[in-house]
Amino acid sequence: MEKLKKYVSVKDEDHFYHQGAVELLIFNFLLILTILTIWLFKNHRFRFLHETGGAMLYGLVMGLIIRYVTKSPDVESGTVYECEKLKSGPSTLLINITNQVYEYQYKREISHHNVNGHQGNAMLQKMTFDPSIFFNILLPPIIFHAGYSLKKRHFFRNLGSILTYAFLGTAISCIVIGLIMYGFVKAMVHIGQLKQWEFHFTDCLFFGSLMSATDPVTVLAIFHELNVDTDLYTLLFGESVLNDAVAIVLTHSISIYSPKENPNAFDAAAFFQSVGNFLGIFAGSFAMGSSYAVVTALISFMHLTKFTKLCEFPMLETGLFFLLSWSAFLSAEAAGLTGIVAVLFCGVTQAHYTYNNLSADSKMRTRQLFEFMNFLAENVIFCYMGLALFTFQNHIFNPLFIFGALVAVFVARASNIYPLSFLLNLGRKQKIPRNFQHMMMFSGLRGAIAFALAIRDTDCQPKQMMFTTALLIVLFTVWVLGGGTTPMLTWLQIRVGVDPDEDLKAKAASQSGSNLDKNTTKAESAWLFRIWYGFDHKYLKPLLTHAGPPLTSTLPEWCNPVARLLTSPSAYGDQQKDGDTDYIINNDELTENYESSACIPVPAQDSTGFIQAPGKEDIQEGDLGLGGYKLQLRDTAAQPQKNSLA
Amino acid sequence: MEKLKKYVSVKDEDHFYHQGAVELLIFNFLLILTILTIWLFKNHRFRFLHETGGAMLYGLVMGLIIRYVTKSPDVESGTVYECEKLKSGPSTLLINITNQVYEYQYKREISHHNVNGHQGNAMLQKMTFDPSIFFNILLPPIIFHAGYSLKKRHFFRNLGSILTYAFLGTAISCIVIGLIMYGFVKAMVHIGQLKQWEFHFTDCLFFGSLMSATDPVTVLAIFHELNVDTDLYTLLFGESVLNDAVAIVLTHSISIYSPKENPNAFDAAAFFQSVGNFLGIFAGSFAMGSSYAVVTALISFMHLTKFTKLCEFPMLETGLFFLLSWSAFLSAEAAGLTGIVAVLFCGVTQAHYTYNNLSADSKMRTRQLFEFMNFLAENVIFCYMGLALFTFQNHIFNPLFIFGALVAVFVARASNIYPLSFLLNLGRKQKIPRNFQHMMMFSGLRGAIAFALAIRDTDCQPKQMMFTTALLIVLFTVWVLGGGTTPMLTWLQIRVGVDPDEDLKAKAASQSGSNLDKNTTKAESAWLFRIWYGFDHKYLKPLLTHAGPPLTSTLPEWCNPVARLLTSPSAYGDQQKDGDTDYIINNDELTENYESSACIPVPAQDSTGFIQAPGKEDIQEGDLGLGGYKLQLRDTAAQPQKNSLA
Repeated sequence: MEKLKKYVSVKDEDHFYHQGAVELLIFNFLLILTILTIWLFKNHRFRFLHETGGAMLYGLVMGLIIRYVTKSPDVESGTVYECEKLKSGPSTLLINITNQVYEYQYKREISHHNVNGHQGNAMLQKMTFDPSIFFNILLPPIIFHAGYSLKKRHFFRNLGSILTYAFLGTAISCIVIGLIMYGFVKAMVHIGQLKQWEFHFTDCLFFGSLMSATDPVTVLAIFHELNVDTDLYTLLFGESVLNDAVAIVLTHSISIYSPKENPNAFDAAAFFQSVGNFLGIFAGSFAMGSSYAVVTALISFMHLTKFTKLCEFPMLETGLFFLLSWSAFLSAEAAGLTGIVAVLFCGVTQAHYTYNNLSADSKMRTRQLFEFMNFLAENVIFCYMGLALFTFQNHIFNPLFIFGALVAVFVARASNIYPLSFLLNLGRKQKIPRNFQHMMMFSGLRGAIAFALAIRDTDCQPKQMMFTTALLIVLFTVWVLGGGTTPMLTWLQIRVGVDPDEDLKAKAASQSGSNLDKNTTKAESAWLFRIWYGFDHKYLKPLLTHAGPPLTSTLPEWCNPVARLLTSPSAYGDQQKDGDTDYIINNDELTENYESSACIPVPAQDSTGFIQAPGKEDIQEGDLGLGGYKLQLRDTAAQPQKNSLA
Repeated sequence: MEKLKKYVSVKDEDHFYHQGAVELLIFNFLLILTILTIWLFKNHRFRFLHETGGAMLYGLVMGLIIRYVTKSPDVESGTVYECEKLKSGPSTLLINITNQVYEYQYKREISHHNVNGHQGNAMLQKMTFDPSIFFNILLPPIIFHAGYSLKKRHFFRNLGSILTYAFLGTAISCIVIGLIMYGFVKAMVHIGQLKQWEFHFTDCLFFGSLMSATDPVTVLAIFHELNVDTDLYTLLFGESVLNDAVAIVLTHSISIYSPKENPNAFDAAAFFQSVGNFLGIFAGSFAMGSSYAVVTALISFMHLTKFTKLCEFPMLETGLFFLLSWSAFLSAEAAGLTGIVAVLFCGVTQAHYTYNNLSADSKMRTRQLFEFMNFLAENVIFCYMGLALFTFQNHIFNPLFIFGALVAVFVARASNIYPLSFLLNLGRKQKIPRNFQHMMMFSGLRGAIAFALAIRDTDCQPKQMMFTTALLIVLFTVWVLGGGTTPMLTWLQIRVGVDPDEDLKAKAASQSGSNLDKNTTKAESAWLFRIWYGFDHKYLKPLLTHAGPPLTSTLPEWCNPVARLLTSPSAYGDQQKDGDTDYIINNDELTENYESSACIPVPAQDSTGFIQAPGKEDIQEGDLGLGGYKLQLRDTAAQPQKNSLA
């Protein structure tokens, strides 16, 4: 009936509790080390290793120690019990062993060739997370924070370009990587470097899609520190945020692409179904995320006569904000959509509407809370990436494959940035200069999303090889490209020390002559965006926030009774204070600035605004980086801050 | 070799992800509902149901729905597989089912009689947390917050009484409950209401120790809202915080009490070993917690000449603070001590030393972060308690046992409060009046800790009966006693609307005549405390914080070189500004106040300061409760807030 061999010794319950504590303690220790290192680096203005790189390095060292120093205390062998009566794996298994029933929980499927990997070190096994932890716990705060802290003003100014890079660019990147890798795999099989596994074209495309998620967190941190040109910053940030979303949905669509017959042949029906899936999942997640944010905005906006507003209880407000945003993620997951995409657009919408309704206290609380969660989650992921290089037990290192992937990633990035920039420049008034294109090309770092997508599925050998390769490419790009950012900025002569507000005005002025603010938005934005902006400003903003013109003035006459009911009393006063078109320029966004940024001495520049020599950067003092954000409230709307007790 | 029956159908991986999302979504939904209800209650100044009571109520309703409305989608039967070759339960089990290997993870032991409980609803199974989640994730932030927000001034004033209630009182309570329950169990066996399980005296003591952890969160919230007499507040709060710690360690010690022969007989050696265990674990956890806090204080205090201080990077500072505090918990757990106790004393020490070194930004961030985590964790636990009444599958309801437990809890509380108060009043200058004693008696609510201790072990039938009983007593006390707090305050004529600062001064003045502040500390504190205070103020404070007199003036002459090195430059300026003895009164603590508390109209009082009629309380407007804390920074030390870039 079943072959049995002995496996492991008993563990009492207490032992289990303590084991969990030890693992968490290791992570805590790594994070503490990382923070202390960042502090040290900040003191020495050392910019060649970003905190994420540092976290990865410490993780790597810890992984080495765990692998080669700790002994395997109790795992004796990885034996498989055979069980012929079961038709499939139950979620819970009750087993009677020497008259005591034990409950076991389903963890995952394992390929036969991996069974041996289970021999050996129990500690390594313990240090391996369940991949769902990445998607359900660590990524959501990072992505939400990205959406919530998006500089909407600059983002919308470059919306067209960002969307092009994110959607078209990611698709190009995915296909190019897929094609190159397919060629490589074929060639490797041909010269006998690779056994002919089930390595289909869809697998290559899958690899392409997961490697297309860029994560230039290192580069962006340096940009932020040096106040690099805002357009470049926005293009890179916007692209990376959106292309994460695109890559996740793309990976999902490709993984469920199932041609009916030959998996290598092209099946038009299955292809179009995948495209449909992509669009459906993306749109559904978008809708789910924004609708939760709209609900939050409505609740925080409620001004029933008998009720004190929610914003007078900052703790409840923050709690509700947090829970509803998280619910957006969970609902999307529960509905079979992509939670990460939902939470991204939830963040953007929360910042656009709800943020205006929050009390001053909650504005700060929510910002700091998500900033903190982002900081922790990011460092945990990068620590874990370092750890995984040595603690993950099913690595398949294939140098040729890795080399091929590096080439493919490089070529794909180039065929994303340069052709699209050329096309975009045909339509843009403010061209994307050559050196910006080179910098974007250079900033194609891979990070958390690529890793999380790769680790989600490591059951078969091709997937394991992809995981190992993805991990190494992340390490390489974060250390080499991340470390080279500052020299690259100098070499490409990209302006640093730019004040974003001044910059925007100056650019607008140089184009439209006089008429400073008024024309900026309209001149730069596409017609589609202008229609949306008008609708948003006239109807949605007044409906969902305390800002904007009163609905009574924007809706037709006959709607007046309804409009009066729905408009916030403070909206009336607002109208006189704020102009219409420059609203998006000066209002309704959360601007982050350095603490006392006024006293940052900008790096030595020559008259053209370029850094002259790398050495001179050191003149820039006490950069605060992550630590020094200060929330500068820009809400000029005449919202009364009722903190007193009503 | 093994008997096999089929068990459950397959689950693909995606299904698993979504399942987790659905469960979390249910909790999110319950919490959102709770927050909206609190908002509603705050508007109507409704004080008969506290948020925790509300959370429990919603949890209960949701539990009912899950139990009776949802169908069991896929669990077919709870079958046990027998496995004779295994000697014990391995931590991981690899099983080959129809040529596919599945990995299973050890979850827990199950008693034979519970196997049937596994039949039925998969949703119920999913909604049942692993008990370690309570101890490792939900309780630490609550306990840390209690320690961190302790009003040290009032706490130390009443230290002797609080310690008496917490240590002696909890021991009395534990023994009284244990004795009464033992009598009850004997009687029940006698009249045939209870089968003679293995229900030893130690089991009754175990029940006594877990039921001795009081959790008057409901009462304290109302006290805080109504500004009830600060001494009463402090006695209750201090007692409940410390007695949690005592009860946890006591439960642990009792559960490892193992007499060699007859478990019913008294074994002196085993008893003393248990007492030794108790003392060792308590002292060890205390040391672990405070030493982590001291390390944090030292790091945040570091003033190396070349370095910018850590407090100029608030994000790093907050991160380090959070991680080191959590590490205190994890290290204690990993070392076999009690993490909860460690994290409590870590919180107290962090507030005492580290808090002084933090930047203004971090002071606020850490307070708000822990306040928020406390809020969420508390409501999750109470939601779960409500849920567990219907979703937990191994309840054993025994009305007689429950009745007996209620009586025992009541009697034990009485024999804790009244005799100890009598003894304490012999020594106290400021007596504990009769009505305070009645109120303390009344405030013996049971809550999160009792529940968490009871759910930690539900393997055998006596433990299951204890769990059910503990859960019902929590529900009863939170709803009935919690709801009756405001009427009780009126009935007992306890002063409300007291300004804590004024109160303290007035009391001191009434005792020592003139010489207002100077004598307060000394008059009220025990000699032991006075020695400690002197040592702390002269050596520890200057060493660990920017406050206090410089070490150069407190250490002997010959230590001057070392002292100069260790003293913060700001300490010198400090000395002139602050007096010595009133330091503990006015400085070095985080005072929480209502936002704009000045404009809270206090309830209608007659000349003696008592509420006149319950209806009049409604005059108190817009109480902010949890939401409205405002951090009032009292740090008068001349610590330069260098937020500019050094």
